[in-house]
Amino acid sequence: MDRSQLHTMLRSFLHEDIGHGDLSSEPLFSRGEEGSARLEAREPLVAAGVETVAAEVFRLQNAKIQVSGAVADGRSVSAGDTLLTVSGPVVDLLKAERVALNLLQRLCGVASFTARFVEKTKLYPARITDTRKTTPGLRMLEKYAVRAGGGYNHRFNLSDGVMIKDNHIAACGSLTRAVEILRESTPHTIRIEVETDTLDQVRECLECDVDIIMLDNMDMESMKQAVTLINGRALVEASGGVNLETVAAIAATGVDIISVGALTHSAPSCDIGMDWQT
Amino acid sequence: MDRSQLHTMLRSFLHEDIGHGDLSSEPLFSRGEEGSARLEAREPLVAAGVETVAAEVFRLQNAKIQVSGAVADGRSVSAGDTLLTVSGPVVDLLKAERVALNLLQRLCGVASFTARFVEKTKLYPARITDTRKTTPGLRMLEKYAVRAGGGYNHRFNLSDGVMIKDNHIAACGSLTRAVEILRESTPHTIRIEVETDTLDQVRECLECDVDIIMLDNMDMESMKQAVTLINGRALVEASGGVNLETVAAIAATGVDIISVGALTHSAPSCDIGMDWQT
Amino acid sequence: MDRSQLHTMLRSFLHEDIGHGDLSSEPLFSRGEEGSARLEAREPLVAAGVETVAAEVFRLQNAKIQVSGAVADGRSVSAGDTLLTVSGPVVDLLKAERVALNLLQRLCGVASFTARFVEKTKLYPARITDTRKTTPGLRMLEKYAVRAGGGYNHRFNLSDGVMIKDNHIAACGSLTRAVEILRESTPHTIRIEVETDTLDQVRECLECDVDIIMLDNMDMESMKQAVTLINGRALVEASGGVNLETVAAIAATGVDIISVGALTHSAPSCDIGMDWQT
Amino acid sequence: MDRSQLHTMLRSFLHEDIGHGDLSSEPLFSRGEEGSARLEAREPLVAAGVETVAAEVFRLQNAKIQVSGAVADGRSVSAGDTLLTVSGPVVDLLKAERVALNLLQRLCGVASFTARFVEKTKLYPARITDTRKTTPGLRMLEKYAVRAGGGYNHRFNLSDGVMIKDNHIAACGSLTRAVEILRESTPHTIRIEVETDTLDQVRECLECDVDIIMLDNMDMESMKQAVTLINGRALVEASGGVNLETVAAIAATGVDIISVGALTHSAPSCDIGMDWQT
Amino acid sequence: MDRSQLHTMLRSFLHEDIGHGDLSSEPLFSRGEEGSARLEAREPLVAAGVETVAAEVFRLQNAKIQVSGAVADGRSVSAGDTLLTVSGPVVDLLKAERVALNLLQRLCGVASFTARFVEKTKLYPARITDTRKTTPGLRMLEKYAVRAGGGYNHRFNLSDGVMIKDNHIAACGSLTRAVEILRESTPHTIRIEVETDTLDQVRECLECDVDIIMLDNMDMESMKQAVTLINGRALVEASGGVNLETVAAIAATGVDIISVGALTHSAPSCDIGMDWQT
Amino acid sequence: MDRSQLHTMLRSFLHEDIGHGDLSSEPLFSRGEEGSARLEAREPLVAAGVETVAAEVFRLQNAKIQVSGAVADGRSVSAGDTLLTVSGPVVDLLKAERVALNLLQRLCGVASFTARFVEKTKLYPARITDTRKTTPGLRMLEKYAVRAGGGYNHRFNLSDGVMIKDNHIAACGSLTRAVEILRESTPHTIRIEVETDTLDQVRECLECDVDIIMLDNMDMESMKQAVTLINGRALVEASGGVNLETVAAIAATGVDIISVGALTHSAPSCDIGMDWQT
Repeated sequence: MDRSQLHTMLRSFLHEDIGHGDLSSEPLFSRGEEGSARLEAREPLVAAGVETVAAEVFRLQNAKIQVSGAVADGRSVSAGDTLLTVSGPVVDLLKAERVALNLLQRLCGVASFTARFVEKTKLYPARITDTRKTTPGLRMLEKYAVRAGGGYNHRFNLSDGVMIKDNHIAACGSLTRAVEILRESTPHTIRIEVETDTLDQVRECLECDVDIIMLDNMDMESMKQAVTLINGRALVEASGGVNLETVAAIAATGVDIISVGALTHSAPSCDIGMDWQT
Repeated sequence: MDRSQLHTMLRSFLHEDIGHGDLSSEPLFSRGEEGSARLEAREPLVAAGVETVAAEVFRLQNAKIQVSGAVADGRSVSAGDTLLTVSGPVVDLLKAERVALNLLQRLCGVASFTARFVEKTKLYPARITDTRKTTPGLRMLEKYAVRAGGGYNHRFNLSDGVMIKDNHIAACGSLTRAVEILRESTPHTIRIEVETDTLDQVRECLECDVDIIMLDNMDMESMKQAVTLINGRALVEASGGVNLETVAAIAATGVDIISVGALTHSAPSCDIGMDWQT
Repeated sequence: MDRSQLHTMLRSFLHEDIGHGDLSSEPLFSRGEEGSARLEAREPLVAAGVETVAAEVFRLQNAKIQVSGAVADGRSVSAGDTLLTVSGPVVDLLKAERVALNLLQRLCGVASFTARFVEKTKLYPARITDTRKTTPGLRMLEKYAVRAGGGYNHRFNLSDGVMIKDNHIAACGSLTRAVEILRESTPHTIRIEVETDTLDQVRECLECDVDIIMLDNMDMESMKQAVTLINGRALVEASGGVNLETVAAIAATGVDIISVGALTHSAPSCDIGMDWQT
Repeated sequence: MDRSQLHTMLRSFLHEDIGHGDLSSEPLFSRGEEGSARLEAREPLVAAGVETVAAEVFRLQNAKIQVSGAVADGRSVSAGDTLLTVSGPVVDLLKAERVALNLLQRLCGVASFTARFVEKTKLYPARITDTRKTTPGLRMLEKYAVRAGGGYNHRFNLSDGVMIKDNHIAACGSLTRAVEILRESTPHTIRIEVETDTLDQVRECLECDVDIIMLDNMDMESMKQAVTLINGRALVEASGGVNLETVAAIAATGVDIISVGALTHSAPSCDIGMDWQT
Repeated sequence: MDRSQLHTMLRSFLHEDIGHGDLSSEPLFSRGEEGSARLEAREPLVAAGVETVAAEVFRLQNAKIQVSGAVADGRSVSAGDTLLTVSGPVVDLLKAERVALNLLQRLCGVASFTARFVEKTKLYPARITDTRKTTPGLRMLEKYAVRAGGGYNHRFNLSDGVMIKDNHIAACGSLTRAVEILRESTPHTIRIEVETDTLDQVRECLECDVDIIMLDNMDMESMKQAVTLINGRALVEASGGVNLETVAAIAATGVDIISVGALTHSAPSCDIGMDWQT
Repeated sequence: MDRSQLHTMLRSFLHEDIGHGDLSSEPLFSRGEEGSARLEAREPLVAAGVETVAAEVFRLQNAKIQVSGAVADGRSVSAGDTLLTVSGPVVDLLKAERVALNLLQRLCGVASFTARFVEKTKLYPARITDTRKTTPGLRMLEKYAVRAGGGYNHRFNLSDGVMIKDNHIAACGSLTRAVEILRESTPHTIRIEVETDTLDQVRECLECDVDIIMLDNMDMESMKQAVTLINGRALVEASGGVNLETVAAIAATGVDIISVGALTHSAPSCDIGMDWQT
């Protein structure tokens, strides 16, 4: 995660929440008045974005804000634990508070939800990965949170991975032809993945040496057969209908990767608050 | 919702998802190849952002994309209903698809969740409103979705509303003093709201003629007493711990406004897909 | 006034004036050469933007520039008084000079002009407020200067206030209908204002419980009758044709607010210079 | 004046005035509702920015807005004359109205004020030029308005002109040395100008072949002597203390250029309104 | 190559060259005056960016400019051939001319230079690829030109490919350890590449199953041995000291990829002019 | 060269090369790990942009990076000489490395190539200048490098110089008419230049007192005659077909300025590397 781009994002979030100024706080606090507060987990959670994101929000709002005691991203904390302590000009702590909390609640939510999928599959080698089903504008942060939760990242966007889907196949006449064309155009640093619905398509993928075979919405039995069929000649990714009930069984089929849209589009927000210290 | 700012946001979301180009689709489709697809609700939902947001994503990606049949925002649709039909250059439909879906799933999610709170309180005059607990970068869109779901908006940011909280009161010595200072500094077009924890604070608010009194995390009994006490001399807003189980009882206390952070931070994403037509 | 947005504005102003570099100063001064200068009021004026704006221009141009002795915004100064002393690399003092002066002359102009209206009405409770007739791009700064001059702010833009005008009424069929629709759509944190031309319209406003009634271009007599009629049931704003000759008489009618476009569109620029110290 | 940069400026001005939407007009007008209005001069003025700026504001807000009958920039109009007629979606006409008027009032103000200086000096060959004392953010537009009023432009910013002032001379030890250094560093496409306070400095300028000699705040007699002394060997610019009372006498001294900061920092705003047509 | 990002780049290039307006052309041409011109190759070259880039520059400057007869990117043309014909408002053709030519000369230069490397190696299967040694700000365009010239792209930037170099190995203690760590952190869609200086390092790469082995600045003999050793178990990339004299011999060693920094940092600019038609 | 604009450019270049993060370096280096490296000239060259550009790239990437020993711009160095030493967090040194080198190789290339033209003409007073044939997006930097190499700058863009070409003349009917119009519209701070193909045109230029006469692609004999004809009454600029073989002869004709597009469009890139220190 690059800090320069992070800063650009955070500045625009602060602008969204502050507008042209804080009508409530600016008239009440002299510029110099200082205070201190702690960000507290109000439920058990896996930390993500504490030092890397929330602390940066406060520092960007005013470089004079001191940040300390940040819990390491990826660490599990209990309800009542302090995630971060901030101190500095009160008016700027108040201006940054909502943005920091809104981000932290979401990122810890993604990390915590990811950790539950990871926990369910810990007996199997399969990676839990995210998808492109992220919140528009927050992809870099949410993919960071997935890693904090023990998950892995799938491609970041359309320009750093290749995925051949139905339309692509239809446009070329055959899966094999689509693979040929894209193998020719794709940088050698990037693997070619094909989305398959049937075992016949899996076989066609093997014949044309596809790097990654996605089993899209297949039932358990088909997935097992596909894994047997592929037998290590390609990476196998399961996708579609993955949830906390099904993920362990999917992992047990022997697939290498399980991609889960829900990690980012359906992770419950975590309850985190900011308490002022006196 | 202003279109110019909407466009700026949508362009940056498209950039996030497309990167420097689509490695999969650009080599496979000639620029001219056209196709058509429909965005389909895969569960019952309240529409939000169909014509206003999703259709704009497609049009911004390529002005040649034709959009039709958009379901009106605010309308309830059933699983299987078509929300929008798009047709035009296939490569651009594919480039815009993920951003349009990611936004639509979230916005319909917010509208649908809001509609459930509205439904629960339909016997009472209380407004269901959002808060500032929105997704960073999406506030304008999420607040639009709240309205589509039958809810109302609270202040947009720190510069278009005044809310006096604990810190402000502590900084001034008393609630009354904080109100005096802010009444002097606040544009006359904006009402002054005070967050109260006790009936004593409510009484102090009435004495200094506060416009809106927020009852923060009060129990039902206290809320009822507060409403009786206030007796129409200020708007009364209930806040804190509002959920689908408690909202009807809160509305029954006679408060004017119920603000619900969950509308935007915990609305479940709706299942919406894009089906290609042949 | 939020510093982050202020910085964005000031950077673009510096870019406008500096272009790709200073052809005159860069070749003549080695980077290290230091100097000192004072910004001096060349006529009596009310200070605005000295520390908050002009000093920031210098600091943004080069963080090594030291600023001291800034006169507090809102303070009246005499011809010859020093507003600010700056010292640091000469080449950067020269690059920042024109932008700092151009802003300061305008902001002190607005504050000083506002102060004259405030002085004229000091016997009456009426607030002098600005309007949206500000210089494009400078609204946040000019509204700040109005406050420095003892005035108050009206709504900042179209999204943080509601004003019902002729067109709106015509579009709905009646004033009452327009108020009903907007009361339903407007956040409860924002008051509803209606522009009236006649006492009949004032009466209609009172019947539908409008929050703020603007008396637009009414003669003194009508204003007095309107104030009597309204009798505290709404805030009363006078607008139109307000100048230094008429403002006291308008205030004497008992209105609560007098909005004056001239504060920002016709404030004479103040004469302020920068003198180098040897 | 380049349209692409103009559009960037106008979009940011519209954003400043509209915020996240128009709380008053959006709920009242269906998107399709159309109307028509005329921008009217309410006092005699010289037009500037009618088609080039104000019309663009409306078109940028919504490309469906039709613009017609624009008075040519530079033309003198009478009170009551129509400057521009606009028609299209009412909600967008209302959103663009204030920005268009705020710009037009200022630009016509600058053009009209310039025209008065030009008129006063019409018997003499001297050019009336602007300075860098423009409104931050509006330099391109205000310099355009100066031309519309019959004036001329001085350098646009620090990178397209050279002006040697006291500090520069002090830094080099002598005027002659400063000229030598800058003649060496300056592109040959740009003339070198020196600010002089005394006839001795004028003489030194002539000895080192300066292209433009500015007579800074000299009295009439000194200016006449300077013009005689220079005798066509350099362009002569008068600057400082120029106003409508003094400008003719200054022009009569025979100077080539008279630069007037007041053209942009003290031009009175013109009264222009927008009348809806029924 | 995505058009939205292309437009952002081209707009900033036009701004760089036009500044606040064209002092020469704007006063001489009425807005309506139209003309026509052809962009002509003045030496044999391989076309790149004709319709995709140069034509867009003209269209962005003014949507009224008509473009026709664009030579397809990748096509070889002779001296005197027309690459593109443009017609429309003369003032906008002149404003866009320099940017269009500057880009086209460079992009055709890259494509033509790439084509010479491709030609030299046509008997071998090796891909000629670019590197990250591109012109800052032009990477997307230059990589496009490499493809137009028959070459291939290496990773676009640090976030869509993995390359383990000396420092990385040193930081981890061993090549094997670095590979282990990065295999764990890297998305499965991206291959892992290691830069090797010796055959021992090549052997270590094979033991830990590296996807791509770069032979960095190895002599021909070592490269041949490496290819034999690797024997298809990894992609082999040759890098360092590649030029038109050595490239065929390198290709003959049997490597899969030859990456050539010179394609973008040392491609000679092509001579292309714009001729007005009468 | 203004630092604020430089920073904007450099940030966008870093973003282009880093993307959303460095997949190779971020997982391998803890944030605190420090290192040191030197940028070394691998061939003799004239330095340009060492402290001013390359060092800024490193400092912008991380303010903790220390820079020392920068060779002064304009200085000639030998192969093996150190240009700059950088030390700080390894991960940030690696992220900034490629952008710093890509810029430095190009800027030193331009300065070194310029220095060769300057050397060839050192017996004559003629200035070697650049043109607008710069790399889009890099004009400010490349023109700086030209100066570092001992050359001079021509106009920066279309708004800070006037050049009358064929089209302009054709549009007005005559060269004389074009000069009249542009003399009237051009700020007095800017000289008027005319491109001429024939001695007749040169004569017409002299008659209407043009400031700079460009001899466009004239043969040596014509240039000599033109210089004789002009005889100091205008600056004389030679342009077209200038290269290292012809430049001395052109200078010998007595022209004042020789503008060379090749300085920026065809300067060979310099070989510069970054060596890590242990």
